[in-house]
Amino acid sequence: MSFRIKADLFYDVYASSTCIFNIQALGNSYNQKIISESLEVAPNLPFKQFSLPDSKIRFITVQANEFVPFQICYQGEIEVKFKTISKKSLFKNTSIFELDNKIVPYLSPSRLCPSDKLMKLAFKLFGYLQSDIEKAVAVNEWIFNNVDYVPGTTDASTSAYDTLNQREGVCKDFAHLGIALCRALNIPARYFTCYATNINPPDIHACFEVYIGGQWIIFDPTRLSNLSSLVKIAHGKDGSEVAVASLFGNASCTYMNIECENLNGDLNPVYSSDDFFISY
Amino acid sequence: MSFRIKADLFYDVYASSTCIFNIQALGNSYNQKIISESLEVAPNLPFKQFSLPDSKIRFITVQANEFVPFQICYQGEIEVKFKTISKKSLFKNTSIFELDNKIVPYLSPSRLCPSDKLMKLAFKLFGYLQSDIEKAVAVNEWIFNNVDYVPGTTDASTSAYDTLNQREGVCKDFAHLGIALCRALNIPARYFTCYATNINPPDIHACFEVYIGGQWIIFDPTRLSNLSSLVKIAHGKDGSEVAVASLFGNASCTYMNIECENLNGDLNPVYSSDDFFISY
Amino acid sequence: MSFRIKADLFYDVYASSTCIFNIQALGNSYNQKIISESLEVAPNLPFKQFSLPDSKIRFITVQANEFVPFQICYQGEIEVKFKTISKKSLFKNTSIFELDNKIVPYLSPSRLCPSDKLMKLAFKLFGYLQSDIEKAVAVNEWIFNNVDYVPGTTDASTSAYDTLNQREGVCKDFAHLGIALCRALNIPARYFTCYATNINPPDIHACFEVYIGGQWIIFDPTRLSNLSSLVKIAHGKDGSEVAVASLFGNASCTYMNIECENLNGDLNPVYSSDDFFISY
Amino acid sequence: MSFRIKADLFYDVYASSTCIFNIQALGNSYNQKIISESLEVAPNLPFKQFSLPDSKIRFITVQANEFVPFQICYQGEIEVKFKTISKKSLFKNTSIFELDNKIVPYLSPSRLCPSDKLMKLAFKLFGYLQSDIEKAVAVNEWIFNNVDYVPGTTDASTSAYDTLNQREGVCKDFAHLGIALCRALNIPARYFTCYATNINPPDIHACFEVYIGGQWIIFDPTRLSNLSSLVKIAHGKDGSEVAVASLFGNASCTYMNIECENLNGDLNPVYSSDDFFISY
Repeated sequence: MSFRIKADLFYDVYASSTCIFNIQALGNSYNQKIISESLEVAPNLPFKQFSLPDSKIRFITVQANEFVPFQICYQGEIEVKFKTISKKSLFKNTSIFELDNKIVPYLSPSRLCPSDKLMKLAFKLFGYLQSDIEKAVAVNEWIFNNVDYVPGTTDASTSAYDTLNQREGVCKDFAHLGIALCRALNIPARYFTCYATNINPPDIHACFEVYIGGQWIIFDPTRLSNLSSLVKIAHGKDGSEVAVASLFGNASCTYMNIECENLNGDLNPVYSSDDFFISY
Repeated sequence: MSFRIKADLFYDVYASSTCIFNIQALGNSYNQKIISESLEVAPNLPFKQFSLPDSKIRFITVQANEFVPFQICYQGEIEVKFKTISKKSLFKNTSIFELDNKIVPYLSPSRLCPSDKLMKLAFKLFGYLQSDIEKAVAVNEWIFNNVDYVPGTTDASTSAYDTLNQREGVCKDFAHLGIALCRALNIPARYFTCYATNINPPDIHACFEVYIGGQWIIFDPTRLSNLSSLVKIAHGKDGSEVAVASLFGNASCTYMNIECENLNGDLNPVYSSDDFFISY
Repeated sequence: MSFRIKADLFYDVYASSTCIFNIQALGNSYNQKIISESLEVAPNLPFKQFSLPDSKIRFITVQANEFVPFQICYQGEIEVKFKTISKKSLFKNTSIFELDNKIVPYLSPSRLCPSDKLMKLAFKLFGYLQSDIEKAVAVNEWIFNNVDYVPGTTDASTSAYDTLNQREGVCKDFAHLGIALCRALNIPARYFTCYATNINPPDIHACFEVYIGGQWIIFDPTRLSNLSSLVKIAHGKDGSEVAVASLFGNASCTYMNIECENLNGDLNPVYSSDDFFISY
Repeated sequence: MSFRIKADLFYDVYASSTCIFNIQALGNSYNQKIISESLEVAPNLPFKQFSLPDSKIRFITVQANEFVPFQICYQGEIEVKFKTISKKSLFKNTSIFELDNKIVPYLSPSRLCPSDKLMKLAFKLFGYLQSDIEKAVAVNEWIFNNVDYVPGTTDASTSAYDTLNQREGVCKDFAHLGIALCRALNIPARYFTCYATNINPPDIHACFEVYIGGQWIIFDPTRLSNLSSLVKIAHGKDGSEVAVASLFGNASCTYMNIECENLNGDLNPVYSSDDFFISY
């Protein structure tokens, strides 16, 4: 399945600023292949691209000048080959002791996912379930059923602690709550950003991944996206690690256009089933 | 029914301090009559007693000197005549528009009861119920069933927002959560402090009151006290208004002994029923 | 000096709602006399006016119907006779022990003014000053010099704790910080709302009052208003007690027009001097 | 210079638990060489040691059984070769654009160091200084001068946001505030844990590092340690990443003994000077 994706961002610059963007599709992997892509920064400003060690997550750093507005436009055609796994293959829990060391940090609380403060609540709500996969499915359902999707009610510092009480938010808040509850149940969980069809108004979407049975499984508690039609950008401990734009200096976004088109025609959304989508 | 109550508090004083205590039984009313009482401050420090306008709540202000430890001991014999009301008399809701003006402030959020942030959650959990009394009963049950009584897990700045997430606390935290949820449902609610038998370790106890059908009804979501055996001290918007001791300067409590004895023998605890206890 | 004041507010109503307004000038006192006033609610909805016991602060309760937008318009002509006191009359501090009982609650922390958490900071910044009036003046100056007036950076739940760190806000935030710092220094302080000339965009203004030498003294750390040209509406422990509008139900303000005109011509602003303005 | 270090920890275990410890000296590097070391877990429980990719930070995972108390004891003899750099070599600032990619994450806010909320304050206090090294020195001095070292006033969730207002804490709080203020000034900063002589009561110590001129420079705003006598354990975005013990399950520490002895005799403490200590 192929997707045409586009992120077109405009900034006003009030003081010399360094701007780091995380808008490019994740680099080539088994699941995702970059057929073609382009990146333009106008006017002609110095920029560089980089990835962190051992990572396919890609960043662009732009050096912007005082009082010179700029535009960054990324476009790509990406082939996505999704892979599923059946629920019954996932019933065996991995003990923390046996967990791959690289996975261990995703058990700990993070800024927007303070799982350490939600242990009792998570146990009371989901502790009766036996397997990690059942718990993760129940967390995902619970969020969909108990939190309202209401744009404009939260901001960048809203945490899962707030969403649990206030019961409203957008995709990032749903994802943070999913992560916090899973970590509180000792299931490794991380934040996932992507291009997705069907998002209205179009924006970069957020889901969460849990580590069960040796792989990362994707959940979207908003049920807004079709899990078979996501172009992954990045994952991180929470949204604060994989922001679309991190600005050092004084600049602000004046316009943003995100597009994601399925070049093979839209599929039916997949809400829940006995098959789970694997991330990577 | 008569009770012998006692509060014996010792303080070390590191700098000249003014200490305001709220430990005396509420002044005479229909429900509560002071048979005898005594107050001693040792050594012989200047102190005064006062009530706020239109209030039977009593305060003692002690002027303590630097490096002079002091003790305040209050004792009383109090006759309590509790009054109940049947559930069926309480089914009619009072509209906010018709509410007595003096009751209106108890609808608003306060420091430890941020009801404005719990509106959606309260509606999702209890909004299906028709009458205010059913909602208040359900709030009280929910807290008992979903929050653990665990001494030492909270402090004076723990709010209902925290308790809702952390699911543990002591009587003050249970009361604050009851108040916050009721206010979020547009039911006036306030904090209630008292001497109570059966509290272990013995301490001043906290419950909450809701205003339904023209009177204040008492609830104890900890189920630790016997509602027919409470000697009321005070009520307020939340615990921050009726602290046992408010210290201005630099002093700290080194020892505290609270006693409450039923002079007529202990009664069976009353947990819930179709009769509700009226406060005043 | 006479002022023509006006508050014109429009609401959309999504569900039957009770709306309590605090927009009328404080009732007649030595300092402020209501020459004439009018109140209109359109369409013709039930409303009532009330004050709390022992208070000249006035509220209006409107009962609004589902899907019926309404407008409330208050206008008045108010004569204001301001009274000042010289700094040298204020140098004697009142001990907390001697304080009038009604003033004592203004020493305690409140929701938006958590003074109990700022004791060390307040002492470090202002503890070297001898008299309460010098401390209050220094607090007021410090806020003006260290906090930026930036509309749009804060909301109704921003507390003095936040403003102290974030160093930006509007008049309510400046006032809350002034109150919190004064209370942390054991000086009684309260929130003050008013109509004021010179406010741009026109809005209801907030200042703070401190209790020194037996009277309430007004401070405006924004320096936006002329302290001789304020028409007082209300005072309270903080802004949460004297909100312009408290809405129970589901309604939202769609338009707001506030006016305040000095009928005797504008005066020069008074920033600071050896004379202080007395509130009441 | 050689040090004998020891961490001896005892745990009670209430349910089967996985415990991850970060108590071993950082692996061999230019500055630090492990002469000998031993690790004992009693009783004989399964444990494993690991490092994260590209890291010399070492972790031990112990699998503890329900109701079986255990002890973990780490001892080592470590040779430390500290290296200093003169202030004048550090005056050139590195632009964010030129920064090594691996350093970029240390510019971002983290859970206990919410630098994004302290930008204005940091700029007001330190923005007048020209070079990053002068800013970092000023931040370090400011913390020492404005925050009191008071054990028992903070806990594991206390952030730099709290410490800035409350003005008290212990080494971890001092370090978090240093990190938050430096990041708010666009200087990369991270948390640093170590064994140190002179700490009373003996405990694992925390400092912070800033990235200037191509290397990490160590600061200790408590001034409790001698920077030439530190045995490094780990660094991280903040204390939540390098906790001494992370417990999954239900266990609690009942006793802890930390030792650090300079085998070459104690040196004079180095508070501040024109030479800075380099971390690695």
